Order: sequence, then C-alpha cells, then structure tokens
Amino acid sequence: MHAADLLIVLDLAGIFVFAISGALVAVRKHLDLFGALVLASATGLGGGFLRDVLIDATPPAALADWRYLMVPVAAGLITFVYHPQLGRAENAVNFFDAFGLALFCVTGTSKAIEYGLGPVPAALMGMVTGIGGGMLRDVLAGRVPVVFREELYATPALAGAALVAVGHELGISFWVTAAIGGLVCLVWRLLAIVRQWHAPTPRGPASV
Amino acid sequence: MHAADLLIVLDLAGIFVFAISGALVAVRKHLDLFGALVLASATGLGGGFLRDVLIDATPPAALADWRYLMVPVAAGLITFVYHPQLGRAENAVNFFDAFGLALFCVTGTSKAIEYGLGPVPAALMGMVTGIGGGMLRDVLAGRVPVVFREELYATPALAGAALVAVGHELGISFWVTAAIGGLVCLVWRLLAIVRQWHAPTPRGPASV
Amino acid sequence: MHAADLLIVLDLAGIFVFAISGALVAVRKHLDLFGALVLASATGLGGGFLRDVLIDATPPAALADWRYLMVPVAAGLITFVYHPQLGRAENAVNFFDAFGLALFCVTGTSKAIEYGLGPVPAALMGMVTGIGGGMLRDVLAGRVPVVFREELYATPALAGAALVAVGHELGISFWVTAAIGGLVCLVWRLLAIVRQWHAPTPRGPASV
Repeated sequence: MHAADLLIVLDLAGIFVFAISGALVAVRKHLDLFGALVLASATGLGGGFLRDVLIDATPPAALADWRYLMVPVAAGLITFVYHPQLGRAENAVNFFDAFGLALFCVTGTSKAIEYGLGPVPAALMGMVTGIGGGMLRDVLAGRVPVVFREELYATPALAGAALVAVGHELGISFWVTAAIGGLVCLVWRLLAIVRQWHAPTPRGPASV
Repeated sequence: MHAADLLIVLDLAGIFVFAISGALVAVRKHLDLFGALVLASATGLGGGFLRDVLIDATPPAALADWRYLMVPVAAGLITFVYHPQLGRAENAVNFFDAFGLALFCVTGTSKAIEYGLGPVPAALMGMVTGIGGGMLRDVLAGRVPVVFREELYATPALAGAALVAVGHELGISFWVTAAIGGLVCLVWRLLAIVRQWHAPTPRGPASV
Repeated sequence: MHAADLLIVLDLAGIFVFAISGALVAVRKHLDLFGALVLASATGLGGGFLRDVLIDATPPAALADWRYLMVPVAAGLITFVYHPQLGRAENAVNFFDAFGLALFCVTGTSKAIEYGLGPVPAALMGMVTGIGGGMLRDVLAGRVPVVFREELYATPALAGAALVAVGHELGISFWVTAAIGGLVCLVWRLLAIVRQWHAPTPRGPASV
C-alpha cells in the first residue's frame, strides 16, 4: 500500500467518525432520516469544503470522487439505526473523533501549503479543516458550536496544524511533521477529554 | 421563444416563489423590511450560490445579471406588504414552491454536469440547488431547517436530480430527462404535502 | 504614505473594530477564549471572505497576508481581558463600528467592480462586505442577525455602496466617490444610532 493510498484510507476513516457525531446530534434533536444524513455529511465533509472554497481548490475532492460522498451516507444510516448502541459507546466515539481531528488538522494544513498559502494561514486552514465540520453541524442543528464553549477542541487542532506548518518552513519531511503534529493533537485532545480541560472563560460579569 | 430563454424565465419564476417563502418567514419572525429582503434573496438565490461556489462557477450567474437580483427584491417587497393575503394562500404558495423545487433540482444537476462533475456529485448538487436556499433561510432566521424535521422535501429533489444525472449517463436527451425528473419531483412533493408524508424518524429514545 | 497604504491601514482598522464587536458578543454569551477569537475573526473578516468567495477572488486577501489574521486575534484577546471597560464604552465602540461599516461598503464595492461585476451586483457585494461579518457573528452565536430586526444598519451600507458603483459608471474618480459614499454611510448610520431610527416592520399580525 502506498503512502497516498494510506492517506485516502485515513481521510475516509476521519470522515466516517465525524459523520457519526453529526448523525448522533441529529438523532438527539429528533430530526428525521434526511436530517441525519445531511448533518452526517456536513460534519464529515464541511471542514474540507470550507477549506477548499477558501483556498480555491474547487470543486472539493469529495465532489470529484463519489466514494467520499458514500462514507457519510453510510455513517448516517448506521447511526440512524444503531444510535442507542453508538450513544452508549461514547468513549469510543470520542476517541475516534480525536483521531479524526488529528488527521484533518495535518492533512488540511498540508493541502493549504500545497496551494501556496504561507505558514500562518495554512495552519489556520488546518484548524478549520478539523473543526469546521463540527461548527457547521452545530449551526445547522440550531445550537452554538460546542467548540466555542464546552470543549478544549480547537487548540489541539491548531497546535498540530502549526507544527506541520513550521516543519514545512524548516524543510523537515512531511511524514515526520505529520506524525509529530498529529500525535500532539491526538494526545492533547484525549488528555482534555480525560482530565476535563477547558479553554479559559472571561472573568467578571459581562456588561449588557 | 427559444429553449434557453424558457429556462431563464422558469428560473426567475422559481427564484420568485422561493423568495416569497423566505419573506414570509421573516414576517412571521417579526423581522424588519431589510430582514425580509435578505431572507427573500437568501432563499431564492442561496441554493444556486452554494452550488456555484462548490463547482467553481463563480461569480454566480445572479451576480453577473442584475435581473436575477431584482426578482427576490420584488418578491420580498410584495410579501412585506401583502403578507396577510399570501399567508392565507398557503396552498398556492406550496404548489409554486414545489414547482420551484422541481425546476431547481433539474437545472442544478444539469449545470453541475456541464462543469464536469460525475453523476453522483451532480445529483447531490441538484438537490443542494433545490433545498439550499430554504436551509440558509432557516439558519438565518434562527431555526433548525424545516427540511430536517417536518417535511418530505429533499427526497423528491434528490430523486428528480438523480433521474437527470442517470439520463445524462445513458445519453438520453436533456429535455426528456428534465421533463421526467422535474415531473417526478413535482408530483412526489405535492403528494407529500397532500398526504402529509414524512421522512422516517429515529426509533427509540436517544441516549444523552 | 501612499493611497494604497492608507487603504490597508484603514482596512485593518475596520477589521479591528468589527472584531471587538464579535468578541463582545462572545463574552456576553459566556463563550470561552477560543469562541471569542473565532467570533472576533468571523466578524472582522467574514464579510470580506464572503465577497471574495462569491466574486472568485480566492484565496481571500486575509489568507495571503498573515497581518490580516493577527488583527482580529489581537482584538479578541484585548476584548477578552478588558471586556468590562469596552462594554461600558459602548458609544465609542458604536462610532468605530459605523466607521468600519462605511469603509467596508466602499472598499467592497470597489473590489467587486475591479473583478468585473456590474454596478448593481457590485453595490450588493459592497453591502455584503459591510454587514456579512456581523451576520456570521450572530449565526455562530446562535441568534437572529441584529441587522434583520433591531438596527438600521444595512441601508446606510447599501447607500454608500450604491454611490461608489454609480460614481464608477459615471467615470468619476474613485477617491471622490469613496469619500462621498463613505461619508453618507457614516453619517446615516450615526444618525440612526443617535435618533434610534429603525427599518420598517410588517404591518398587521402575521398569519401562522
């Protein structure tokens, strides 16, 4: 198996786990089957679509390759039927979600660099790839994105993305920085889940 | 009148009826005149904009031709003034809305094929053209898109779009597949309204 | 200092004040530091991103120049720490926000003309540049955009944008129309704040 094939398989795996989280939100919001499929697709593909539209890599890869579209549909259907089991297996879902986040922040940064962006915007695009799908899911489901308030989620993604961008500037091999950046994101995110780390909240009462 | 002119007139008619549904939501949410005009424009043009941005057909047709921009503004103004009458004529509004949906799923698929997309993504883009405006309307109006929960709306659009995409693969004339695809979408959607069909909802209580 | 440099400095100043309004909304919604930074960035850069994606000027300028990304981050951090003081200085924040609106409607229209749009779509893109960031801020913060219901905000932006578009059609120098368009937008918006002008709301009860 070549490295490029490995990347595609990992990418599809990341889309799959993100799509499950989208479909679970749909079930909890009592949406219908179509809502579950759209939230699954938006969560799985939304971050990459947002990145591709902003860096002018349109049409996004997922629209040029129908296998990319089948993965969130499959994840949505599975979740629609087996949501009680998946909802109970929350630890496993969270672990795979952290894995997807680590993967997306690395591949997203790499693609942005490939399209000519500098290190700072490329790292931002990496983070957007990782968190954009979940933000879109929450906006469509009518809630404030959880990434803004409950979870330490974006910072690990930005850290992983920044490591890839810095490594590229220093001329280090992609596979080395990808491994380090992805691992930092993954471990940080898992520690945040286990130890319930949160981002700082504003001090003092807000004026109205 | 040429076929291309007919398509433009139908397209403008579809934008008009979608824009009325957007302005009616604005009135019911007690938004002001500007809110009504933006929701009218977002509903009428949003699906096509979303498709055009994703398939890289930018700037969208509506930005290259000011007549496209005047139609939702006119629909918004008319609805703002005559909303009590339009609100009561709900059956007529729903009929024309189904007509717009049928039209958009056909023309959206056709445009995506023209821009080089394969049949599966092209059918998806056709569905997005049909339902994207209403989803944008609902997100801007602060509610979960009705297409996710109340209405059997997306499935007819996807069916019509898929027929156009399959017909193109089989080398059938566009006008034949357009007529069949549009009719299937229209009839299915109207039956869903009359018989109150819904998409399936998840079984069992959702875990939290 | 050249005119182009002046434009960049003004642009960064506009992004800065818009970003403060975004971060203030985040603090009032009890979001965390990351939510404040994202809402600051979305408010400061969102209108320009939306315009650039629609007129096919991608990647947006802010992604090609990292200084553009640092400005909303700085505004977000400052607001996160000093939100009580900034929240009390509401008059000053509103004044600078009106200044940013005037600036963005002028530069947005000008960029759209440069990319080949006609006068009507170019004026619309100017308005979108001015109000898009605030709309994105409100959607991400889970509220109906204030521009739809509380504030006379979009009309001044459209008026300023229209003056720039008409001036370009008549062959008048950009700096003259920019000054007039910007001033009309600024004064109108400030009068709307001081005299509490609102856009018209629909008459009569809405049918349900």
